[in-house]
Amino acid sequence: MSSKKLVNSVTGCADDALAGLVACSPDLQILDGHRVALRSDLESLKGRVALLSGGGSGHEPAHAGFIGKGMLTGVIAGAVFTSPAVGSILAAIRAVAQAGTAGTLLIVKNYTGDRLNFGLAREQARAEGIAVEMVVIGDDSAFTSLKKAGRRGLCGTVLIHKVAGALAEAGVGLEEIVRRVSAAAAAMGTLGASLSSCSVPGSKPTFQLPVDEMELGLGIHGEAGVRRLKMATADEVVKTMIDHMTDPSNESHVPVKSGSSVVLVINNLGGLSFLELGIMADAAVRCLEARGVKIARALVGTFMSALEMAGISLTVLLVDDALLTLIDAETTASAWPRIARVPVTGRPRSRAAPTEKPEGTAPLTGGPGSKKAADILQRVCTTLLDLEDHLNALDRAAGDGDCGTTHSRAARAIQEWLKEGPPPSHPAQLLSGLSRILLEKMGGSSGALYGLFLTAAAQPLKTTPGLPGWTAAMDAGLEAMQRYGKAAPGDRTMLDALWAAGQELHTLKTPGATLLPVLSRAVQSAEAAAEATKKMEAGAGRASYISSAKLEQPDPGAVAAAAVLRAILETCQSF
Amino acid sequence: MSSKKLVNSVTGCADDALAGLVACSPDLQILDGHRVALRSDLESLKGRVALLSGGGSGHEPAHAGFIGKGMLTGVIAGAVFTSPAVGSILAAIRAVAQAGTAGTLLIVKNYTGDRLNFGLAREQARAEGIAVEMVVIGDDSAFTSLKKAGRRGLCGTVLIHKVAGALAEAGVGLEEIVRRVSAAAAAMGTLGASLSSCSVPGSKPTFQLPVDEMELGLGIHGEAGVRRLKMATADEVVKTMIDHMTDPSNESHVPVKSGSSVVLVINNLGGLSFLELGIMADAAVRCLEARGVKIARALVGTFMSALEMAGISLTVLLVDDALLTLIDAETTASAWPRIARVPVTGRPRSRAAPTEKPEGTAPLTGGPGSKKAADILQRVCTTLLDLEDHLNALDRAAGDGDCGTTHSRAARAIQEWLKEGPPPSHPAQLLSGLSRILLEKMGGSSGALYGLFLTAAAQPLKTTPGLPGWTAAMDAGLEAMQRYGKAAPGDRTMLDALWAAGQELHTLKTPGATLLPVLSRAVQSAEAAAEATKKMEAGAGRASYISSAKLEQPDPGAVAAAAVLRAILETCQSF
Repeated sequence: MSSKKLVNSVTGCADDALAGLVACSPDLQILDGHRVALRSDLESLKGRVALLSGGGSGHEPAHAGFIGKGMLTGVIAGAVFTSPAVGSILAAIRAVAQAGTAGTLLIVKNYTGDRLNFGLAREQARAEGIAVEMVVIGDDSAFTSLKKAGRRGLCGTVLIHKVAGALAEAGVGLEEIVRRVSAAAAAMGTLGASLSSCSVPGSKPTFQLPVDEMELGLGIHGEAGVRRLKMATADEVVKTMIDHMTDPSNESHVPVKSGSSVVLVINNLGGLSFLELGIMADAAVRCLEARGVKIARALVGTFMSALEMAGISLTVLLVDDALLTLIDAETTASAWPRIARVPVTGRPRSRAAPTEKPEGTAPLTGGPGSKKAADILQRVCTTLLDLEDHLNALDRAAGDGDCGTTHSRAARAIQEWLKEGPPPSHPAQLLSGLSRILLEKMGGSSGALYGLFLTAAAQPLKTTPGLPGWTAAMDAGLEAMQRYGKAAPGDRTMLDALWAAGQELHTLKTPGATLLPVLSRAVQSAEAAAEATKKMEAGAGRASYISSAKLEQPDPGAVAAAAVLRAILETCQSF
Repeated sequence: MSSKKLVNSVTGCADDALAGLVACSPDLQILDGHRVALRSDLESLKGRVALLSGGGSGHEPAHAGFIGKGMLTGVIAGAVFTSPAVGSILAAIRAVAQAGTAGTLLIVKNYTGDRLNFGLAREQARAEGIAVEMVVIGDDSAFTSLKKAGRRGLCGTVLIHKVAGALAEAGVGLEEIVRRVSAAAAAMGTLGASLSSCSVPGSKPTFQLPVDEMELGLGIHGEAGVRRLKMATADEVVKTMIDHMTDPSNESHVPVKSGSSVVLVINNLGGLSFLELGIMADAAVRCLEARGVKIARALVGTFMSALEMAGISLTVLLVDDALLTLIDAETTASAWPRIARVPVTGRPRSRAAPTEKPEGTAPLTGGPGSKKAADILQRVCTTLLDLEDHLNALDRAAGDGDCGTTHSRAARAIQEWLKEGPPPSHPAQLLSGLSRILLEKMGGSSGALYGLFLTAAAQPLKTTPGLPGWTAAMDAGLEAMQRYGKAAPGDRTMLDALWAAGQELHTLKTPGATLLPVLSRAVQSAEAAAEATKKMEAGAGRASYISSAKLEQPDPGAVAAAAVLRAILETCQSF
């Protein structure tokens, strides 16, 4: 059975993919009757050198993604992993010639089919009197002894598109472009490594890899590489790759050494996660820099793929300032990344984190306020510890049975805090301190939600003194809990109890209101609301995934919240 | 067994990936001690609104790839598929506040953990007096009835980064950015579809899909979607997706209809080949345009991935001119694609191919030259047909045994051509005509190489008359064959015979030289060279993959070439 693919037909793959790219790139056009994409502003190139490239499909975004001002004029695409037709290459050459360009350069990856077909089209065009030159790019550093066929053309070809594109855009002549591009191509090496093969649409994978092995030095058509490696860490794989591609005894090595300045390309061969690509980029930068290599620019992304192959290639191009200027030149090509025009090596990669903002005033501790706060908290803690088993039992019916455990953890954390000294006497500082403890120690979404509640509640207390401050604090806390937790009253959560209490506390804003009667009503209301959660359908939190018919007990979070409020009330009553 | 991954450690994945991205992006920095990336030119943002986003890792290039002028100020990354730590979010808020920014907007994808942790950090920052707002993006159109938790945040979030970034860069205030970003977020829908699941490093895939099924409406954490689809064509899958996400009975649909103007994002969820992505882009553009939707801009690429998931998501954002201006605004963010600022819908996507260049003069046929050419060609054809079995036998020893078949195919094609009428009498036109026939009909690399040879050989004959013209023709043909075919004399190919003959033909340039004696020596030399290929190691062509010890017969291509030359000689002798 062939591999799963999202296509319309096996035979139409290359046409459809090119059509899709052109449809989404309004500055590109298809040449009627050919699998050729060209800049739609060809006429603006009058007097400049045209650059054509291409090859088999399956390497997207190469090559059509590199068409644009400052890069390619057009590309000719073959079927998947198959050289393009001579007639289409010739048609592309004729089209750019008719637009008045000053000669055409064909940039061809070194594969027999591409050499022959582009070569043929070139000879035919020359026979028509069109000036056409051709450079054949071979950047593969896999094979340690070179065959006559030479090095294969891989991802480095994209850098050549860029260099040639910048030169052509600057109005440089055909011969000079050939000369400079050939020099750049000779100072370049690429090596691939992959965790998987790939499969041409309609076919099975081109080779198989055991689960604990990867392939080194493979090409971009699913052809096998030079050797198998046992799976290793990203650092080890990168070291093996860079050792291989820079080893002077390797006839296709790139002569990178300490002090060399390079452009580095970390290319996704298709199906590798970008998480892993980033990890490999990190490893490659560290490995090269440890060898004294200066990385002038680094490109990370998918540039020259081999369908869905889960692998990478590394390309290293030796550069001087003149070459770097060409890499940096502007382009509109959609697949060329935006790279900062500053060196990768030698700049600070981190900045100091700001120190934690000091509180405006040191917490006021001690005195009667502090003593009362400690008494209330102690009572809250013993209440929660006493409730641990009950809350866990309630939670087992609807959640994961740890509600009591979570609240006990909070209680013990608060008890530890109280042992460190008296708590702050200022209400805002008290709630901020509690928030910090719960966020750090309570855990679960209850911890986050109580932390939020207390952080938000502390704010109005900074500016609004007395009982109205507490009303505002409760409202702010409830607002934050609803906003970030997405629960509303009636959703069978702890919010139900807190919200019911909050409504009663509004009475505290009335001039002359006294705390205890209001707080007492608030606690009764919270307890009634907690009990009422029995009949509620869960609208948020983990219990929302359980059918309401199975929920016959009150929500443990609401029960705990009501119990906390009663503990506060009863302690206040004892003062 | 967990899936193969290129990592250094499971726990270090998120840190290493972010470090790699920052290392390769010299305009980014890590905030010491936190998984936070920030613009390195923070101080240049004084007086402007800062934009922070983030979430779990595994969605690369989101979010750090979208940091830059005109997009995000910074991001906070969690572990893979896990919300970031509150302390790191707060540290990032403090860092941008200390740089003198005019308030911070947190752009958060709608997931409980992200809402709570970003919300908490926001409340804590506000408690420190920092102006911080938060927008929660939910663009998922998968669920037809909405839960209280709301729509999940998916790839559309990247468009919000862009819109907010353009506004912040333009100096717009925090409240106005919140208002405009919220309006844009409400006019957006995203739907995913995938051929595979993905696996968190160290774990197995999060779900399994049968080989003939795909998943519709899945999230970006490998969580399953709303339903399974049988594998279908790209067009059918796109239709199902767009039907679902624009269906008014779907509570999370995006209200796109005929006449709507939209920005379309075709997002690779990670491991889909870019070939398929292009095919899906083509299908999506056609599907929307067929419904009268005007596509203002289309983005194709990897923007918000789910590790290596082989799937796509489609995002549709309803736009007016004002919103489009923000999408079009400049940015330096590395992962934002270069898109042309012209509409996708309504412009010509193809241009007429140039008509084939007419030959300068109509072929001269008939007359004694034409008759002689026909006689020579007939003799060449019968020679090759007679040799078919012999050449195939020779080829079986070293190649794939079809050399005779290929040459016979050429012979029959030439015979057909001769039946159409007398061949051109002008040598250049004769060789061009033969080249066309061989390229079209002969096939194999021999067809391409003879086509090349004849095309190149025809050129000097246009300008150089008489015997010296034929010498130059042979040289030009040999040069082209060596250049594009990468074979040299001695490589055991047809070139050996032709090259040997070519050297003898140089004598024709001598004043007073006569054809027949020279041609006779050339043929003898070619035959000797063909025989000598017995002892040659194959340096090019298919036989180069065979050990030389196994090659005891002459190269069939060389034998055929020598036989062709002898046929020419013997016909000429008969005139």
